[in-house]
Amino acid sequence: MADSSDQGAVVSNKQVIFRNFISGFPKESDMFVATGPVKLKLPEGSRGVLLKNLYLSCDPYMRILMTPKNEGSGEVFAPYAPGSPVSGFGVAKVLDSGHPDFKKGDIVWGITKWEEYSVISAPEILFKIQHTDVPLSYYTGILALPGLTAYAGFYELCSPKKGEYVYVSAAAGAVGQLVGQFAKLMGCYVVGSAGSKEKVDLLKSKFRFDEAFNYKEEHDLDAALKRYFPEGIDIYFENVGGKMLDAVLLNMRDHGRIAVCGMISQYNAEKPEGVCNLMNVVYKRVRMQGFNVFDHFQQYAKFLETVIPYIKEGKIAYVEDIAEGLESGASALVGLFNGRNIGKQVVVVARE
Amino acid sequence: MADSSDQGAVVSNKQVIFRNFISGFPKESDMFVATGPVKLKLPEGSRGVLLKNLYLSCDPYMRILMTPKNEGSGEVFAPYAPGSPVSGFGVAKVLDSGHPDFKKGDIVWGITKWEEYSVISAPEILFKIQHTDVPLSYYTGILALPGLTAYAGFYELCSPKKGEYVYVSAAAGAVGQLVGQFAKLMGCYVVGSAGSKEKVDLLKSKFRFDEAFNYKEEHDLDAALKRYFPEGIDIYFENVGGKMLDAVLLNMRDHGRIAVCGMISQYNAEKPEGVCNLMNVVYKRVRMQGFNVFDHFQQYAKFLETVIPYIKEGKIAYVEDIAEGLESGASALVGLFNGRNIGKQVVVVARE
Repeated sequence: MADSSDQGAVVSNKQVIFRNFISGFPKESDMFVATGPVKLKLPEGSRGVLLKNLYLSCDPYMRILMTPKNEGSGEVFAPYAPGSPVSGFGVAKVLDSGHPDFKKGDIVWGITKWEEYSVISAPEILFKIQHTDVPLSYYTGILALPGLTAYAGFYELCSPKKGEYVYVSAAAGAVGQLVGQFAKLMGCYVVGSAGSKEKVDLLKSKFRFDEAFNYKEEHDLDAALKRYFPEGIDIYFENVGGKMLDAVLLNMRDHGRIAVCGMISQYNAEKPEGVCNLMNVVYKRVRMQGFNVFDHFQQYAKFLETVIPYIKEGKIAYVEDIAEGLESGASALVGLFNGRNIGKQVVVVARE
Repeated sequence: MADSSDQGAVVSNKQVIFRNFISGFPKESDMFVATGPVKLKLPEGSRGVLLKNLYLSCDPYMRILMTPKNEGSGEVFAPYAPGSPVSGFGVAKVLDSGHPDFKKGDIVWGITKWEEYSVISAPEILFKIQHTDVPLSYYTGILALPGLTAYAGFYELCSPKKGEYVYVSAAAGAVGQLVGQFAKLMGCYVVGSAGSKEKVDLLKSKFRFDEAFNYKEEHDLDAALKRYFPEGIDIYFENVGGKMLDAVLLNMRDHGRIAVCGMISQYNAEKPEGVCNLMNVVYKRVRMQGFNVFDHFQQYAKFLETVIPYIKEGKIAYVEDIAEGLESGASALVGLFNGRNIGKQVVVVARE
């Protein structure tokens, strides 16, 4: 129960508001910054928490929430409410708590809102951060959902074996950079693709992929994949969809596996692109599996035990693209969809 | 070693010859009947077998072999040689053997040629038929690859559970009719689709599907699936591809499974249809897995042990569409692709 002896100061609360549902690519003007008041104290009897938001995560799935719910998109993805703040994953500090599991000063990560201060009425969905000897912003990426996505997606769905040929699209992104490094640690041959020379250089130099290429410079993706995978692809970690998936299907090896993490190329499409080469799923006995990290939370503790030592020992590199302040939030989020970010896109609201 | 004391009579050997590679739907004129001589005796030193062919199997995959090998189609499917007999699965009697595993009088099933008599030089690929107290023609279907395909595809790839919602396309075909019946035996709710009223009636009356519909009478496949599966589909046994797959993807339940057995709607297409709704693989965490029965031969003995009692006890019904004589072979095979057959399409060459 919140302490009622102190009524709490009322301060201004900057917010990033979602204007209205969109079609096509998101634009900065689809969001705007507004300021309202917030009392730095929970109302008496609240079982929630009051958060000071520190780091906000920009993730591709957020585009899906900018379209009214369609029957296809399932329960996991509830659309944004026009006129309300954008929501998403973030790292925050607990300022006040009415919930027995959280106390003032705790650092947490989980679903919060794009604003300076948020009241979370059901804080059971938040994770308390135990290891604070790594940058806290990592809990929007490598130590949060993108990290767990890469971990569960690669180790569980892809059934990787040493020496296998692994291809990662959107490889410089939050998930892709980790999948490639997990695959290297396992002894796989790893090729990544990304959309700029800078990202390609990063994949090879920083993330130690065996090869990398700029898909925008390849007029024939099938030919590019044949160049990098003359023996074919055992594992494809799918972040892109559309034409890329079609080219990959032509290059899968027998009993290949495709973990379908997302299809960022399709989120902004009015009508999704047709994928024509699915017959190869039969020819090559391919297993193609969609997944959602929400089904893998039970592995989170084991995941942290594995990955935090990797980070501390320098076995895994991690690159973030940090945007300063809520004012830069819309631009940072929009940038995801034209590939402007290099590494995990984070928005800093406050550093402590 | 073949017995060399008898030189063997020379008799005429009627054959169905594959004329040349095709595009689009196969036509009867893509094959022709010719007659050559055959000596009813293996040459001295042969390690092969001489077969008298009894029943020949018409299977959708045979269309794939009528197109020159393309890089996508993998090793399993080697194309036909123009000017040579069609080959495929069949049931045959051994007339002469130079192989220690086979003797005169044995009944076998496996890859043979569309002709009266065939010399098989590597008979290791043939299965000796032990249970001859069922119709021998069943060893082109329910007791051969289509049966094993249905069995392995359903029980292994679909991970079925009692009470789940199962949809089978091309449900009156050799594989579909069995998948539906296996699913009913497991306690699933089963709906099948087929292309005529007669087949739909057969699905409901003979194969005891819960529901069945004629896909040709549905202008909106998505709406049809919503009518039969208001709760969505747990398991889809995919024989069709294209538009049907696209509609199914809109109706899958969370953690649904799609066993991709084949995509008959695509085999005759100049360019395969695009499948647009693959995002649902992510939304619903669908597992989609291509398979080929050749990877499941190790289960064949267990499969027979399961299915032969089902047949004898009347727990599984089985319908064949029998064409008489090699002269009707081309027409029977072509008929598969416009859905003329009702049940497993077989060509009888001889009954004993």
